Amino acid sequence: MPEQTKPHVTVLGLGRMGAPIASAFLNAGYPTTVWNRTAAKADALVAQGAIRATTTTEAVAAGQLVIAPLLDHDAVRQALGPTASALQGRTLVNLANSTPDHARELAAWAAGHGADYLDGAMMALPETVATPEAFFLYSGSQRAFTTYRRELEVMAPAHYFGTDAGSAEVHDLALLGTGYAALTGFLHAAALLGSVGTTPEMFAPLAARWLHGMAGFLPELAREAGSAAYADGVSTVDLNRAGVDSLIQLSRASDIATDVHEPLKALLDRRSADGHGRDSFSSVFELLRSRGTAER
Amino acid sequence: MPEQTKPHVTVLGLGRMGAPIASAFLNAGYPTTVWNRTAAKADALVAQGAIRATTTTEAVAAGQLVIAPLLDHDAVRQALGPTASALQGRTLVNLANSTPDHARELAAWAAGHGADYLDGAMMALPETVATPEAFFLYSGSQRAFTTYRRELEVMAPAHYFGTDAGSAEVHDLALLGTGYAALTGFLHAAALLGSVGTTPEMFAPLAARWLHGMAGFLPELAREAGSAAYADGVSTVDLNRAGVDSLIQLSRASDIATDVHEPLKALLDRRSADGHGRDSFSSVFELLRSRGTAER
Ligand SMILES: NC(=O)c1ccc[n+]([C@@H]2O[C@H](COP(=O)([O-])OP(=O)(O)OC[C@H]3O[C@@H](n4cnc5c(N)ncnc54)[C@H](OP(=O)(O)O)[C@@H]3O)[C@@H](O)[C@H]2O)c1
Ligand SMILES: NC(=O)c1ccc[n+]([C@@H]2O[C@H](COP(=O)([O-])OP(=O)(O)OC[C@H]3O[C@@H](n4cnc5c(N)ncnc54)[C@H](OP(=O)(O)O)[C@@H]3O)[C@@H](O)[C@H]2O)c1
Repeated sequence: MPEQTKPHVTVLGLGRMGAPIASAFLNAGYPTTVWNRTAAKADALVAQGAIRATTTTEAVAAGQLVIAPLLDHDAVRQALGPTASALQGRTLVNLANSTPDHARELAAWAAGHGADYLDGAMMALPETVATPEAFFLYSGSQRAFTTYRRELEVMAPAHYFGTDAGSAEVHDLALLGTGYAALTGFLHAAALLGSVGTTPEMFAPLAARWLHGMAGFLPELAREAGSAAYADGVSTVDLNRAGVDSLIQLSRASDIATDVHEPLKALLDRRSADGHGRDSFSSVFELLRSRGTAER
Repeated sequence: MPEQTKPHVTVLGLGRMGAPIASAFLNAGYPTTVWNRTAAKADALVAQGAIRATTTTEAVAAGQLVIAPLLDHDAVRQALGPTASALQGRTLVNLANSTPDHARELAAWAAGHGADYLDGAMMALPETVATPEAFFLYSGSQRAFTTYRRELEVMAPAHYFGTDAGSAEVHDLALLGTGYAALTGFLHAAALLGSVGTTPEMFAPLAARWLHGMAGFLPELAREAGSAAYADGVSTVDLNRAGVDSLIQLSRASDIATDVHEPLKALLDRRSADGHGRDSFSSVFELLRSRGTAER
């Protein structure tokens, strides 16, 4: 695409994420309009070549692609509410952390004003914007994703999860949940090791190594869970039941919290009681995916 | 060390782990004696140059370094019990999965018969033995670890955790616990994504990427937990309380099990109620390391 055909990009919100995003578009040679509630945060970007908008309506009118890395749903509503008339024909990319339902609500609102809508979730830190370490998740308008994929990739590698605008936020929460579980497991393990004189700092490199290994193991787990084919697992429910049980008993004996692993223990116990003790560990997926079953 | 000074190594137990271990010593040029309860499992190794022992006493007498990757504590007791008289001056490395207390019991028993004792835990799969992907954890005799470090490294990179023979098993359980938590988090997340049509297989690469990122985050978490310095965290207790709460609410709305993240939610709620809402997320460590507190 020759330089002059680059679409005009607007960035609404120049906080920790918004500032490096606007900067990335400028670095990539896009005509870029910026707006921020606290105007001074635009100064450095204007010095870098950005066009300053003084109202959100002016900002939205300037850009074909309007990217909003604002704080949250309320900030997005407050900033964009007055701009409804300017949205016609624009593509709005909402990067604020939000709930799936809020994303769907905004998608409907944008559609009502003639705008294409993409909801995005930024798996990134301010310093990883525009590096391959970041990745952003999107859902909503397929046309918007296809038309502006190149621009989206200026910020981070882009993944699209279908036309349900809420889907990106569900994926965001799914990743956060995976991470929360891993970090909680690490902190529990670090607490346990206090009983034999190993500090968290000594444990971290080993645990990191182990987590990298677990990451490599996910495709296999996913294959089993995805096909509900649990029969040929080497690492069975009963084998791991014994392992989790040892862990809980050792935690108790060491006067360390035991509740972190109780839910897994309960899942493994139930699989075993239901006659699935020789199935693969991953078969607890069958209980997780139905709350009715899991809380029985 | 010139070839002729290589110590004689004995491998007791030629199962999935024992066979590649014995093979690794043969490949590294060590005189290697092997024994297995089911004798036929030694055939391929004998063809590769191993010396076959027909009793465990004969096997123990042959080796200066006796490595036992047997099934479990009972197997070790059964196999080694009759060899007590041959143990004098030997170094015994017990690689069976065990409890810390069983490891301590065997250490005392070995010491009583004049043998140095190392307890080991193999963070490995049969196919990663003798590759840099594996790592083995050891505790027990410092002299044994120092004297035979080179030999231990034939099997895998070796980490030593002090003279308490039970410590390696505690580290093993700590790593298993970290992994269990991560895998449970992944399976829960995969279940959640079923509600928006994403399969576990589609999710696995993203989740793997995210887990690699989490692994990179552990040293920082460990630094905070290790120094109990939680004041300057960007990712606060209250911020993550809201995140975990969204996750649980979405799980409930999607009819997915909610209990996986309940323990973390309870920990964050308690930190917040105790006035630590603006502390770093990692400060839940303070609750984990005291069961009395955690179950209050
Ligand atoms: N920081 C991270 O590491 C990170 C990583 C991934 C995702 N996220 C998500 O990215 C989003 C932005 O985060 P951030 O870290 O960039 O936040 P931030 O540094 O606090 O910036 C928030 C931005 O939103 C604006 N804003 C807040 N309330 C507003 C309102 N009522 N009306 C208009 N503008 C308003 C702020 O304007 P003022 O300058 O006037 O306050 C600022 O531009 C959040 O949803 C966050 O969860 C952040
Ligand atoms: N496989 C893995 O991926 C893996 C990874 C890490 C750690 N581990 C641990 O490593 C240890 C060995 O595992 P493995 O997978 O190699 O097991 P395995 O393939 O089942 O082999 C078990 C070995 O123990 C012997 N054995 C069992 N009971 C015995 C008894 N009463 N007396 C004498 N010998 C007995 C077996 O002899 P026979 O051949 O006569 O049955 C065989 O040599 C276990 O503690 C396991 O938890 C395994």
